[in-house]
Amino acid sequence: MNIAEKYISVRGYTEQLCEPLQVEDYIPQPEAFVSPPKWHLAHTTWFFEAFVLEPNIPTYQRYHEDFSFLFNSYYNAAGDRIFRADRGNITRPGVQEIYEYRAYVDKAMESLLDKEELKDLIIIGLNHEQQHQELLITDLKFTFSGNPIHPVYKDGFSIANGHNAHHNKVSVSEGVYEIGHEGSGFFYDNEKGRHKVYLHDFTIDNFLVTNGEYLAFINDGGYEKANLWLDEGWAWVNDRKAAAPLYWYNIEGAWKQYTLGGLKEIEEGQVLAHVNFYEAYAYAEWAGRRLPTEFEWEIASDQLDWGARWEWTHSAYLPYPGFKTAEGALGEYNGKFMINQMVLRGGSQATSPGHSRKTYRNFFHASSQWQSFGIRLADK
Amino acid sequence: MNIAEKYISVRGYTEQLCEPLQVEDYIPQPEAFVSPPKWHLAHTTWFFEAFVLEPNIPTYQRYHEDFSFLFNSYYNAAGDRIFRADRGNITRPGVQEIYEYRAYVDKAMESLLDKEELKDLIIIGLNHEQQHQELLITDLKFTFSGNPIHPVYKDGFSIANGHNAHHNKVSVSEGVYEIGHEGSGFFYDNEKGRHKVYLHDFTIDNFLVTNGEYLAFINDGGYEKANLWLDEGWAWVNDRKAAAPLYWYNIEGAWKQYTLGGLKEIEEGQVLAHVNFYEAYAYAEWAGRRLPTEFEWEIASDQLDWGARWEWTHSAYLPYPGFKTAEGALGEYNGKFMINQMVLRGGSQATSPGHSRKTYRNFFHASSQWQSFGIRLADK
Amino acid sequence: MNIAEKYISVRGYTEQLCEPLQVEDYIPQPEAFVSPPKWHLAHTTWFFEAFVLEPNIPTYQRYHEDFSFLFNSYYNAAGDRIFRADRGNITRPGVQEIYEYRAYVDKAMESLLDKEELKDLIIIGLNHEQQHQELLITDLKFTFSGNPIHPVYKDGFSIANGHNAHHNKVSVSEGVYEIGHEGSGFFYDNEKGRHKVYLHDFTIDNFLVTNGEYLAFINDGGYEKANLWLDEGWAWVNDRKAAAPLYWYNIEGAWKQYTLGGLKEIEEGQVLAHVNFYEAYAYAEWAGRRLPTEFEWEIASDQLDWGARWEWTHSAYLPYPGFKTAEGALGEYNGKFMINQMVLRGGSQATSPGHSRKTYRNFFHASSQWQSFGIRLADK
Amino acid sequence: MNIAEKYISVRGYTEQLCEPLQVEDYIPQPEAFVSPPKWHLAHTTWFFEAFVLEPNIPTYQRYHEDFSFLFNSYYNAAGDRIFRADRGNITRPGVQEIYEYRAYVDKAMESLLDKEELKDLIIIGLNHEQQHQELLITDLKFTFSGNPIHPVYKDGFSIANGHNAHHNKVSVSEGVYEIGHEGSGFFYDNEKGRHKVYLHDFTIDNFLVTNGEYLAFINDGGYEKANLWLDEGWAWVNDRKAAAPLYWYNIEGAWKQYTLGGLKEIEEGQVLAHVNFYEAYAYAEWAGRRLPTEFEWEIASDQLDWGARWEWTHSAYLPYPGFKTAEGALGEYNGKFMINQMVLRGGSQATSPGHSRKTYRNFFHASSQWQSFGIRLADK
Repeated sequence: MNIAEKYISVRGYTEQLCEPLQVEDYIPQPEAFVSPPKWHLAHTTWFFEAFVLEPNIPTYQRYHEDFSFLFNSYYNAAGDRIFRADRGNITRPGVQEIYEYRAYVDKAMESLLDKEELKDLIIIGLNHEQQHQELLITDLKFTFSGNPIHPVYKDGFSIANGHNAHHNKVSVSEGVYEIGHEGSGFFYDNEKGRHKVYLHDFTIDNFLVTNGEYLAFINDGGYEKANLWLDEGWAWVNDRKAAAPLYWYNIEGAWKQYTLGGLKEIEEGQVLAHVNFYEAYAYAEWAGRRLPTEFEWEIASDQLDWGARWEWTHSAYLPYPGFKTAEGALGEYNGKFMINQMVLRGGSQATSPGHSRKTYRNFFHASSQWQSFGIRLADK
Repeated sequence: MNIAEKYISVRGYTEQLCEPLQVEDYIPQPEAFVSPPKWHLAHTTWFFEAFVLEPNIPTYQRYHEDFSFLFNSYYNAAGDRIFRADRGNITRPGVQEIYEYRAYVDKAMESLLDKEELKDLIIIGLNHEQQHQELLITDLKFTFSGNPIHPVYKDGFSIANGHNAHHNKVSVSEGVYEIGHEGSGFFYDNEKGRHKVYLHDFTIDNFLVTNGEYLAFINDGGYEKANLWLDEGWAWVNDRKAAAPLYWYNIEGAWKQYTLGGLKEIEEGQVLAHVNFYEAYAYAEWAGRRLPTEFEWEIASDQLDWGARWEWTHSAYLPYPGFKTAEGALGEYNGKFMINQMVLRGGSQATSPGHSRKTYRNFFHASSQWQSFGIRLADK
Repeated sequence: MNIAEKYISVRGYTEQLCEPLQVEDYIPQPEAFVSPPKWHLAHTTWFFEAFVLEPNIPTYQRYHEDFSFLFNSYYNAAGDRIFRADRGNITRPGVQEIYEYRAYVDKAMESLLDKEELKDLIIIGLNHEQQHQELLITDLKFTFSGNPIHPVYKDGFSIANGHNAHHNKVSVSEGVYEIGHEGSGFFYDNEKGRHKVYLHDFTIDNFLVTNGEYLAFINDGGYEKANLWLDEGWAWVNDRKAAAPLYWYNIEGAWKQYTLGGLKEIEEGQVLAHVNFYEAYAYAEWAGRRLPTEFEWEIASDQLDWGARWEWTHSAYLPYPGFKTAEGALGEYNGKFMINQMVLRGGSQATSPGHSRKTYRNFFHASSQWQSFGIRLADK
Repeated sequence: MNIAEKYISVRGYTEQLCEPLQVEDYIPQPEAFVSPPKWHLAHTTWFFEAFVLEPNIPTYQRYHEDFSFLFNSYYNAAGDRIFRADRGNITRPGVQEIYEYRAYVDKAMESLLDKEELKDLIIIGLNHEQQHQELLITDLKFTFSGNPIHPVYKDGFSIANGHNAHHNKVSVSEGVYEIGHEGSGFFYDNEKGRHKVYLHDFTIDNFLVTNGEYLAFINDGGYEKANLWLDEGWAWVNDRKAAAPLYWYNIEGAWKQYTLGGLKEIEEGQVLAHVNFYEAYAYAEWAGRRLPTEFEWEIASDQLDWGARWEWTHSAYLPYPGFKTAEGALGEYNGKFMINQMVLRGGSQATSPGHSRKTYRNFFHASSQWQSFGIRLADK
């Protein structure tokens, strides 16, 4: 695909994801970390307007003067923005107008899609939109899950199914290895700076923890044993009275989970999803094993079957050697979040096609559950 | 109007209020004390379903099993209900389905509207719906006000306009007076129990405080003088950095207010709205005067021009002598809120036609501003 | 007693209350509404320094420049004051120095105790100190109660014992009555403004609710029945998981209470203490009765045995007709707290001798339990 | 020193640190992360009682049954413990009794100090006490700093003075290095597991950032430039309205700092203290440089002058390869805190003699300021 085709494909996919939605579904923001579909649609569009159209088309007229304020996310350098937790209270512009905004920006972009000098910037915009596609669908799951009538996004749809295809383990020998992106494809600044790390001998599973295995942990009192948990994790368990992964409900003795296809039985053979780092750590302690580091994961990845879950690693999200924040608003993309977050590697069933690679560093707070987070174990 | 006509009229008026809305506007709940239009439409309908249809039509089939859970408000006796602050996150059932729910219940009600024995109950339901009509419009104003593009509900529409028609004062002589509802019309349980009170000589304005008068208080540093405020009021001023009534904005030196017709200049001659009890008290202190008690207000009311604002009285919301909570869920209607709230008398431009009377006791927390609350002063 | 004798007596009694304390006990402030003994000792002294000595002795030298900042309570007009919740973190000046401060001020006061023109002001200061004597002992109980080893202030000491001496009921006939202080003794501004009220026929108990009666309420599930509680009270029960009065503990099936004499068995015949208004209201609902208003209480008081408990009335704390805030800092004494509090009448075993009278209006938030609050019931 | 001498020396030093204190100073806990001196004295004693005496002397009688509950810190396996934020409200046992408790335990320890098999355990206890010596003095500084009269612990005493002795930079070449404790001395479990890391070329300062250099950052608007800060750091700046290191006050234009010797002028040549990781990161960004990793620090340490400050590294606190939590309560010592904390290396003027070494890993949350945290910069 050339850039123009890619642009149409990615932009179209976002709208395709919204086809099953009613207008009402585009609005709510039940928690600060969740954004409404309307906001995702508008924000990804604003990204092209603010970073591609305005700097490169002198005569460009913004669709609406206030949209920058409404649909900026966290780019301090790009002006004031609406307080994050209020996104769910903005009803106007309405959904129809947001689609018109998208069409307006797409039309304006047409003349720039063949500019070689803008290619990198446009590709960042498209990767940014793909990230929001995944967020859109996982945010929607979170919002729907709070509704006691268990809305169905699409019959049979789920981002938490799938089974392990392999059951072998992969061994890697001690030595110096190279980490970080290389080659010509797209990558984020946090993957940059190919550098050496020293790894000790380790073994890593070519499969992920399943619902059934995690149920054994639950049934063995995993959520009641302080010694399995990090101190903060134990506080989290007690504050939330946590007793199972997110979206799991014990209804009259039977475990069910909310999916975007409705409320379903837990299938034991399926790969586990929606655990946070605290749970992943406690599970590993209980199993007498450990989580891999992000470096181990990356080095072993060519021999692993991955892509169904974002997998918690035991690495904190920190800059690679030589990391420098880029100048300007896009410099805020990744670097400023490098504190108190853990790295996840892999991808998920909600990840957009072509948006995962082995050097990709996803990152979330240790308490986050709402993405498709799973567990892969390692030893020694 | 007979009951059937009244029913059609009141139920129709709720829907008429919603005509200017887009589907998106029906959803958000920006604060716990605000409810979405969708919820008001459904809750008032659920009231008839739960309290009139189900007990009186043995074969009645609920429209949906989960609606009681979704649309109950605070009637503990009527079953579990969704946590109040979550009302804004429920997108399904959608707006169209709520209108179908209304039609379904209205249809079922038809056969009961001529039952003499149900008349009182149906009238409670209609008065209840009228209360929600006022809340619907004032809640909507609150939600819209948080949107930086200042949505217009209807051009020229405002619930905070109006001028004083009179400028005289009314004097009442010391003595024993009777308070509380009498006669055959509808009234709430909190107005019941006609009883005697002793009033001392007092004088009360036959006019309300205007925007211009309140501006003089602001310009005199009213929000900066601790001695004018109740202790809690002063804490409120400092916590919120309050400096003007709700919906007032000082934009580059000019005072404007958000109205349902958009952002407008403050007109000094208009009657003030959207102050809380703390502000009303501080204003009265500043003016060297006082707020009337609810008893003074009621006794003087026949000589007063009222109905444009809910007016703060200096009376706490407490039971009248002999007050007894009714049996069953409807007993929760008023009594259980008789703590830490102040009484307001009057009515407002958002009050439904025929829904105000001189014995009506409205009540809110001293910090509330979002209804059309105004100030009338008294002396001695 | 003349003023000088009274001064010595009251000031000495404060120090006498502190005799059983260790230095450590003078320091902590476990909750914002509690003050450390050290602070009470200093604050009551500061009151004489700031309001009597400084305005009346031109050459008076303050004991320490910073003490006004440290030991002012809530008099905004008297200068900045330390944030209330921090009182427990100030270790210097130490306890010994506070006693020296007291001696210094007492010495300076000597020359003013015979000034007729200062008599009223000094009496306010002494009444103020008496209020703090009661707070000192009840605050201490609260602080000690949080210590798992149950410290003993003084063997056999309790502010929650006592039995009903009478078991009759008092009836009062409908009519106009006079309320408020009259005569020449000391009174606070909130008792002033003798005025008329109209009372309807009522009957009031000449005895208070006992521990045993309240246990029957507990055992009947009183804390589990939403319909007995005010809405805020029910929220309080659920937030705190409240199931008994403050200081009551169910230890292996037996009810005990913490007293200043240590942990003791609950004696059923003793008069109940340490319930809040929510509990008093719920108990009255459960008993099919009600709390008296403060006006009923005052009119009946001459025929009642009272003084063992502060008794919750069903009256909100509001100004009497004609109430005016006094000029200057002392004007902040009472008026600014007249919002969202309930009136208590009576006195308690911790009340200083001579500090209670039938027109005295004590007031606390409906959720407060830590004073010796009890219940008297009325009918009709 | 043999163990017995070491025991006497360390235990004695804790009490020596308390000599300048008044009884009052032993009590308060102004924030949850701070503990009162009394608690430190008791808790370090309880450690020997619970982990050495009880398991090894069958006839040992606890000094008091409730002390375990009162003075346990975070060892879940060692029984219930008092809620951390309440430590400052426990006045009994008093200070004198705590010293008696210490003497009682020291006496009982005498018979165990020559047991070879207990040596390691006792040394852990002494190192534990040394950690608390540092906390005791830094907690005290925090508590005193909240007192507007600026108490003096000891004239001329400060834990934030000192100057750089050197001004050179140290360069280290790319390659594989070994990290972690080796040899026979004492170390904590988090230093264990000597392992290889790969380091790239880097240069590190043989000096720390001074007050004067940090002032230049402040004067250049460092606290107002969002782009210098991590996202969480920027939120912290805005929440706290942070504008300088902890204990710095701008009084009428002049910068002063609170020290344990009282309020002093800021001396520009002194080494900076009391910044958190957010501030250290922002300063490094502003200077166009970076913080070293803990591995770089350890490898360069033999060529560095260190020990005056705990120095923020750009490493998250994570387990070394092969880390295993020890069995039993002591296994909770370090591992369970390995989340959302940053590593500090070095030591400080409050660190007990002999308690720092180059492999020591201290760790705190990125927002912590109250220890003697400083900044060392690195490049490339």
